[in-house]
Amino acid sequence: MLGASGYAGRELCALILRHPSLSLAFATANEQRGSTVRIAGHNVTFVAPDDAVVGDTELVFSALPHGASREWVGRVRDSGVRAVDLSADLRPGNGCEGIAYGLTELNRSLVTGAQLVSNPGCYPTSILMPLAPLVERELVAPGASIIANSASGVTGAGNSPKREMLFGEVTEDYRAYGIGNTHRHLKEMRAIFDTWTLDADLVFTPHLLPVARGILSTITVPLSRPLGDVLSPWRDAYANEPFVEVSSETPALKDVVNRNVVRISAVPLAGVRTPTVLVTAAIDNLLKGAAGQAVQNANLMLGLDETAGLPL
Amino acid sequence: MLGASGYAGRELCALILRHPSLSLAFATANEQRGSTVRIAGHNVTFVAPDDAVVGDTELVFSALPHGASREWVGRVRDSGVRAVDLSADLRPGNGCEGIAYGLTELNRSLVTGAQLVSNPGCYPTSILMPLAPLVERELVAPGASIIANSASGVTGAGNSPKREMLFGEVTEDYRAYGIGNTHRHLKEMRAIFDTWTLDADLVFTPHLLPVARGILSTITVPLSRPLGDVLSPWRDAYANEPFVEVSSETPALKDVVNRNVVRISAVPLAGVRTPTVLVTAAIDNLLKGAAGQAVQNANLMLGLDETAGLPL
Amino acid sequence: MLGASGYAGRELCALILRHPSLSLAFATANEQRGSTVRIAGHNVTFVAPDDAVVGDTELVFSALPHGASREWVGRVRDSGVRAVDLSADLRPGNGCEGIAYGLTELNRSLVTGAQLVSNPGCYPTSILMPLAPLVERELVAPGASIIANSASGVTGAGNSPKREMLFGEVTEDYRAYGIGNTHRHLKEMRAIFDTWTLDADLVFTPHLLPVARGILSTITVPLSRPLGDVLSPWRDAYANEPFVEVSSETPALKDVVNRNVVRISAVPLAGVRTPTVLVTAAIDNLLKGAAGQAVQNANLMLGLDETAGLPL
Amino acid sequence: MLGASGYAGRELCALILRHPSLSLAFATANEQRGSTVRIAGHNVTFVAPDDAVVGDTELVFSALPHGASREWVGRVRDSGVRAVDLSADLRPGNGCEGIAYGLTELNRSLVTGAQLVSNPGCYPTSILMPLAPLVERELVAPGASIIANSASGVTGAGNSPKREMLFGEVTEDYRAYGIGNTHRHLKEMRAIFDTWTLDADLVFTPHLLPVARGILSTITVPLSRPLGDVLSPWRDAYANEPFVEVSSETPALKDVVNRNVVRISAVPLAGVRTPTVLVTAAIDNLLKGAAGQAVQNANLMLGLDETAGLPL
Repeated sequence: MLGASGYAGRELCALILRHPSLSLAFATANEQRGSTVRIAGHNVTFVAPDDAVVGDTELVFSALPHGASREWVGRVRDSGVRAVDLSADLRPGNGCEGIAYGLTELNRSLVTGAQLVSNPGCYPTSILMPLAPLVERELVAPGASIIANSASGVTGAGNSPKREMLFGEVTEDYRAYGIGNTHRHLKEMRAIFDTWTLDADLVFTPHLLPVARGILSTITVPLSRPLGDVLSPWRDAYANEPFVEVSSETPALKDVVNRNVVRISAVPLAGVRTPTVLVTAAIDNLLKGAAGQAVQNANLMLGLDETAGLPL
Repeated sequence: MLGASGYAGRELCALILRHPSLSLAFATANEQRGSTVRIAGHNVTFVAPDDAVVGDTELVFSALPHGASREWVGRVRDSGVRAVDLSADLRPGNGCEGIAYGLTELNRSLVTGAQLVSNPGCYPTSILMPLAPLVERELVAPGASIIANSASGVTGAGNSPKREMLFGEVTEDYRAYGIGNTHRHLKEMRAIFDTWTLDADLVFTPHLLPVARGILSTITVPLSRPLGDVLSPWRDAYANEPFVEVSSETPALKDVVNRNVVRISAVPLAGVRTPTVLVTAAIDNLLKGAAGQAVQNANLMLGLDETAGLPL
Repeated sequence: MLGASGYAGRELCALILRHPSLSLAFATANEQRGSTVRIAGHNVTFVAPDDAVVGDTELVFSALPHGASREWVGRVRDSGVRAVDLSADLRPGNGCEGIAYGLTELNRSLVTGAQLVSNPGCYPTSILMPLAPLVERELVAPGASIIANSASGVTGAGNSPKREMLFGEVTEDYRAYGIGNTHRHLKEMRAIFDTWTLDADLVFTPHLLPVARGILSTITVPLSRPLGDVLSPWRDAYANEPFVEVSSETPALKDVVNRNVVRISAVPLAGVRTPTVLVTAAIDNLLKGAAGQAVQNANLMLGLDETAGLPL
Repeated sequence: MLGASGYAGRELCALILRHPSLSLAFATANEQRGSTVRIAGHNVTFVAPDDAVVGDTELVFSALPHGASREWVGRVRDSGVRAVDLSADLRPGNGCEGIAYGLTELNRSLVTGAQLVSNPGCYPTSILMPLAPLVERELVAPGASIIANSASGVTGAGNSPKREMLFGEVTEDYRAYGIGNTHRHLKEMRAIFDTWTLDADLVFTPHLLPVARGILSTITVPLSRPLGDVLSPWRDAYANEPFVEVSSETPALKDVVNRNVVRISAVPLAGVRTPTVLVTAAIDNLLKGAAGQAVQNANLMLGLDETAGLPL
């Protein structure tokens, strides 16, 4: 895999090393090239990107930084090798349309036949997965304003040393960032809204949590009509999905950390004049929000069992 | 003071002990009666509520549990002593209208002359303070849905031993609670909306943070007209307020913890069809959200400098 | 299993549920009887202890509280069923000698044939495992004072609600407890010193860490002679042990959490007149320090592969 | 002050800004020169070191990095200005003997008349302060091995961005470092042992805690004779010291954080053949361990009240 030294990269290495049908051909890193780290009980030595022998592999994962991935993944594709790109470079809304978007449960047939899959962002996974069943059932009020407040653990920001990510800065703190609808992931979600022909505004405000991993998204959705059984859209849509859990209990990070699942709950809002549903969804940002979903996609692309090598 | 053994009670004891013009006549506790604790460099011995000699004091603070305060505070009032009640019992929306509501900056003249003040809830302080300048200026769109997502440190839940508040449960976790507009503080905020004759719905979702103290509220407010200088409503309304900070930088818990301030920022939302402002406000839940604001109110009631004994 | 509702009990339930050869016959709880919890993807309903049908099982685990276990385990034994007791009741030094002590790597043959095994305490596991190779090789200076400083995560204190274990109390704090050689685990370690006929004093000071799980013990041991290759005693003694890792790098909690291993390192001390070695050892207190080692022992007692069902 | 951008530097700026008799002439920073930060309610703009006008000040604090301070402080001294150096450069054991060592309570007369004071390290403060009363009373057994295990919050490592200090790395972790008596602070402590003509070995093992601030040192000291009243050496030696607290309760970080105190407790060790005392001492590493003690020294050097501007 390309770009293995970050948090998502290492998590992906671990999944590959534990996978019953995959093996790790190489792991590249730029700054940390040459160093050996212990991942999932194995010694992994990072090689320089130019020393990676892409052609000998069946599939390449790229967890290269945003901006650096596009070129590499293009090269991989040209050599006829399958690829899953975890960067933002090829996601919808980033000027590279026509590439399969790997929100697995929603795009399974597209992913299965794809040579190249763009893996979704962590926040979009936690927001689009709970929204899709409402959209499919035309339950979102036309012209609605969907308000998504999300909070993420620090591994979402990567492991490059930055002062504001030091333990002494983050402990006992909490703050919003990317405010005013300026976060990179908005483009991605709006592009998906377009493919859904969803007539709705989206307000998205991410926050930084003093935890290592996990995302919780709290979303208000004005409805076109009240829901009888409030959980039925999700119970119906995701009835047979091994990696989606629908529950009457509000999900917590503890329910999903170290697991490749999205956990969804919903309640109707009391005391408001428009019927509105409050949806909460939780994922592990490094698994269902990154490396886990990447393996889920790769399993489909390679004709393997979709759940192979993934922690439930 | 009555009910001194909880987190807010101890914080209030500390403020009284450090206050240049106040002294602590007694501190009651039920379960912990008789025990001596170290607060702000002094040994404080909790006495049983019945051993408190209320009549000898100029003002009584009550941080008794919700439900237990009403009776005690009634007795204090009947004896002609001033009182500040930190419980929810006498707050607007709780069946006890006509009592001065101690959101100090907004009700200063009422508080100054009051014999009894009901101290606001921590969440309402963090939401009503940033909303008031918009309401006064008729900037909230008629019929708007105001969405407030708040996150609080654990001291907001008090220091009674509960399994779900153990360190092993809370660390590395994050969750919503009181979902679907069911939290006790909604009544209080809606009652204030009524006094404001504000025609708007309120959606309020609190979350539990793995930090000791601090609240951040992230609020979207649809506007009746776009704002030119987005911060001007707050800069104008709170220009001379020592305990309100308006900033172009999004507030973090670190900016306000251990200080009796509310810190407010706002940005216009890009990419939405209705002009909407995203407001963020942070407080220390034990100070501006409880004990600090109580002392601010007491200072006014006793004719002292409003800032006396309060940490800026 | 008996006493399944605590942290160690739940961890043990999870291990049993994931174990390839074991199945969970029942899980008792006293206060939480009747409640259903989600463990390792299964719904587990706690039954009252008296509703447990011990006789139908091959082996009973008891994670009952200290003091309550002795009677239950006696009853289990009398019925001819094998038992592993995780409480302190039957450990060496507690007035119940002659029962197999389940420090697995050191007592494998004894454990294998035992009907009843007393599972070691978490701190003793983290201290005796690194000491044993020095004792076997007669490397401890006669009359030496062995100083063990240990620090443990909060799950070591169980999940009963106690004020001093609330998140608001433990976060950003650190303290020693059981000081002056008064901790319950000392008896256990000294009894083992006696079986080793080790002529040495032991000073043991535990500390409470603001983390959920993990123990690190830092131990100074005066030696009878300098060591050439400082790691050789451990490399030799534990060469073929799947659950012991010897490393030249100082172990951190991160290296062992969620794994059933003890990780050991050692360095000679510079600038002291007696040759002395500084040994550091880390375990997950709920796995190698409790539930993991219990399963390791049960595997031996039942003739299974010792590593079955245990996370490496 | 020189070197104001680190954690200790900012803490010192805050103390100066709140000090009744001091004012901040300038604050230098290298990498962050030109940037303005908010400290203690004031805007502080960092200037380049070369733009500092040292000659106009009465006293210069230097919190420059170790290695960079020596030259600057030399220049300050040559210009006739008083200086307190917080770096390790001029501390005992670092090749610069003859400079007043600012462990205030032990060297008060020397500090008072000094033009240049070397401020002690944080760990040495937490270890030498509790040892001194035993040494003065000749209570340490000749040839004894004193074992000091210390644990520190992350601010002790400064605020330079390093991967191993990221929140994602430190949370839920704990580890020893500088093992085998290799930490820089040992030289300093041994040099003080020499000035005390103390015949004892010292074993010092620091650990990294997942907290922002605070140090706890746990120290075993073999005694020349048993102690009757175990706390009497400290109660006697520090009876009139405003910044030393002696208590029969083991100190916790919570007792000392944000305060310029060292808090000390001691118990005799049971079950060992040599009379031995276990001493625990806690400080805030940024206050009594750095900036607070620096101001305490500056107060003496400038003829001010020693406690001026220091939080008790």
